[in-house]
Amino acid sequence: MATTVTAGASTGEKLLRARDAAPRLAQLSTEQKNALLLAMAGAIEAAAPNILAANQSDLENSGLSGAMQDRLLLTAERIQDMARGLREVAGLPDPVYEILAEWTRPNGLRIRKVRVPLGVVGIIYESRPNVTADSVALALKTGNAIVLRGGKEAAGSNQRLAEILAAVPGVPEGAIELLDAGTRDSVRELIQARGLVDVIIPRGGAELISFVVENSLVPVIETGAGNCHIFVDDPADFEMADRIVINAKTQRPSVCNAAEKLLVHENIAVQYVPRIVKKLIEHGVEVRADERSRQLAAGLDVHPASPQDWEEEYLRLCMSLKVVGGVEEAIAHINRHSTKHSDAIVTADQEHAQKFLRQVDSACVYWNASTRFTDGGEFGMGAEMGVSTQKLHCRGPFALAELTSTKYEITGSGQTR
Amino acid sequence: MATTVTAGASTGEKLLRARDAAPRLAQLSTEQKNALLLAMAGAIEAAAPNILAANQSDLENSGLSGAMQDRLLLTAERIQDMARGLREVAGLPDPVYEILAEWTRPNGLRIRKVRVPLGVVGIIYESRPNVTADSVALALKTGNAIVLRGGKEAAGSNQRLAEILAAVPGVPEGAIELLDAGTRDSVRELIQARGLVDVIIPRGGAELISFVVENSLVPVIETGAGNCHIFVDDPADFEMADRIVINAKTQRPSVCNAAEKLLVHENIAVQYVPRIVKKLIEHGVEVRADERSRQLAAGLDVHPASPQDWEEEYLRLCMSLKVVGGVEEAIAHINRHSTKHSDAIVTADQEHAQKFLRQVDSACVYWNASTRFTDGGEFGMGAEMGVSTQKLHCRGPFALAELTSTKYEITGSGQTR
Repeated sequence: MATTVTAGASTGEKLLRARDAAPRLAQLSTEQKNALLLAMAGAIEAAAPNILAANQSDLENSGLSGAMQDRLLLTAERIQDMARGLREVAGLPDPVYEILAEWTRPNGLRIRKVRVPLGVVGIIYESRPNVTADSVALALKTGNAIVLRGGKEAAGSNQRLAEILAAVPGVPEGAIELLDAGTRDSVRELIQARGLVDVIIPRGGAELISFVVENSLVPVIETGAGNCHIFVDDPADFEMADRIVINAKTQRPSVCNAAEKLLVHENIAVQYVPRIVKKLIEHGVEVRADERSRQLAAGLDVHPASPQDWEEEYLRLCMSLKVVGGVEEAIAHINRHSTKHSDAIVTADQEHAQKFLRQVDSACVYWNASTRFTDGGEFGMGAEMGVSTQKLHCRGPFALAELTSTKYEITGSGQTR
Repeated sequence: MATTVTAGASTGEKLLRARDAAPRLAQLSTEQKNALLLAMAGAIEAAAPNILAANQSDLENSGLSGAMQDRLLLTAERIQDMARGLREVAGLPDPVYEILAEWTRPNGLRIRKVRVPLGVVGIIYESRPNVTADSVALALKTGNAIVLRGGKEAAGSNQRLAEILAAVPGVPEGAIELLDAGTRDSVRELIQARGLVDVIIPRGGAELISFVVENSLVPVIETGAGNCHIFVDDPADFEMADRIVINAKTQRPSVCNAAEKLLVHENIAVQYVPRIVKKLIEHGVEVRADERSRQLAAGLDVHPASPQDWEEEYLRLCMSLKVVGGVEEAIAHINRHSTKHSDAIVTADQEHAQKFLRQVDSACVYWNASTRFTDGGEFGMGAEMGVSTQKLHCRGPFALAELTSTKYEITGSGQTR
């Protein structure tokens, strides 16, 4: 067993070990990294009973129930999924040392821009233990050391997983460090470790993300919150609109790319509002609406929307509905209230669609498709670390390439200025 | 005169105006932006006497002298340089709405990754008033609103320049906002304006950069500090090494890409240390050194280097010198002490060079060339906003492309999950 994840070391010692591991990880060849990923997949499979026992103990101590318990739960199948994820990452192209640009200056200097690992990546996450394996896979493939700080409820499962992954022969000491989940001190120490840690990625609820953003001295990739909109325009194919709205709202309401708000063009509101409200209610959705929509849906169970409703990410079967004057008003409403994650227009008018795609200031903007496609896998990236809702470094679903930086390697023959 | 830079508005009002201007700026065509840049160049030339008068008044009030006064000083020639800079940016390619990638998924979804403006860019800088015009040029070309917070000494010059630039017909209200330089409150308000401002770029000394990094809630592109190294290896062409060391140290010692430290391979130290120390002293450089080098340079005026010397960015004619065991020790020393800006090896050994280029963890790593080339102009970018020493978003000299973000525009035909 590697010493990297055993108890006893302080957060500071773990961060220093990760820092020291980074240059060794940067020198691993693609073949070496892929072999380690495959060995990790095998190690997880072999230790499944052990992992399940640790998870059972977490579940018993957690006092969680329902959806929260399900997030924490590991099963034989979910362990298989983790192993499959590790193998899939082994099969993806290695972005490290990719040459992004190369040119020669008139003075003969040869400039080459190459991708390099970031160094040390810090991940702060909540209950789902599969994030441990997924994050280790992406960090290792990109030659980064990783410092993990999981949720308290999953402490035993994460400890077991990190130990198993770090113990794979050939994994450099310090490549995988797991911080104490019992106290917020370890979070604070991690996000303030400027110079030791190169990026912090918080994966979790709005409260966690705000805490990290407000207190971090290390650059952050902000992920997550999605107050996603669908605008049904005039003209629009109502059947397509129904399919997209129902899918985006109900297929998996607890995730960040689920739709939370529906805007309807006033020209079609008389027909479309009662139609979609009825369907939403049939699908078990609580519908809230502005005054105009409520009048159009008279007789249906629609609650009044409060100003707060336009800001809120429900993450459950609830949707607020509003009538707007047209594509300009829809764009303005979205740019004011959305979290800049994913927003969609359903329209048969190409000009409206182009305007919406260009002017809605969100990471992913859709024309005639569900917002649920904002996902690294659905985009064909083969993996995902999260969905960035910030504009710096990367925006939208991100995975391997976004866990790298660049450097310039410049070759001369004695040039001076 | 546009109202955007007139006195009286609070920082909060100015930030809101910039936020409102951002979508209008994003919609300007390349032709419109270039026409505005050319008109700005003309406006600056036409108002030269006016700008010089404001600058004269700043100089009289500043109480500065020597190099500091020179940084603040504007001349007819420097005003010409600003106008030329605006025209050069007009001539550069427009990165906005460039398609970076485009692909179709098996389900028929068409995904397009396009460059978009960041939105609102905040620049915090010190005495040089030309930063005002340069920053406005780069922000406008990339469709961003800009919020400027210059130094107190240059307040009058910056106010005049910003007024002239914002008053050019066609510049949207709020596109150029200048904050009150008289108090640090405006800096604090700017860097905490999360949601209004998309990126903060501090351009200045180490103290300013630390203050911004430690207090900003807005993502930062850290620029600047350069504790740059040159390692003279065995085998190396001594004449080339002399040229590079003298150029990197003395050609312009006050800038971030000037060399501050010299490492010499122990095999050549007996010959090379006294040789280069003599030349450095002839060029007016104060030389500090480790014990071994001091012995080798016996009889020459060499001061002992303290541990602090290995960390310090002198920004003046001072250099510390150390003998190392070889390329590995040089790399380790640099990765421990450098600011990850620019570091160089002088060697005739290709294997050593490759190792150094790959393993030195700095934005720009040189083989047989002066560190002084780390510069947007020298790299052929045609402009420069600064040199990033962080790993997120951009690293090394950055200009237009780095003032953009990306978004995904996704087109479907009713796809759902």
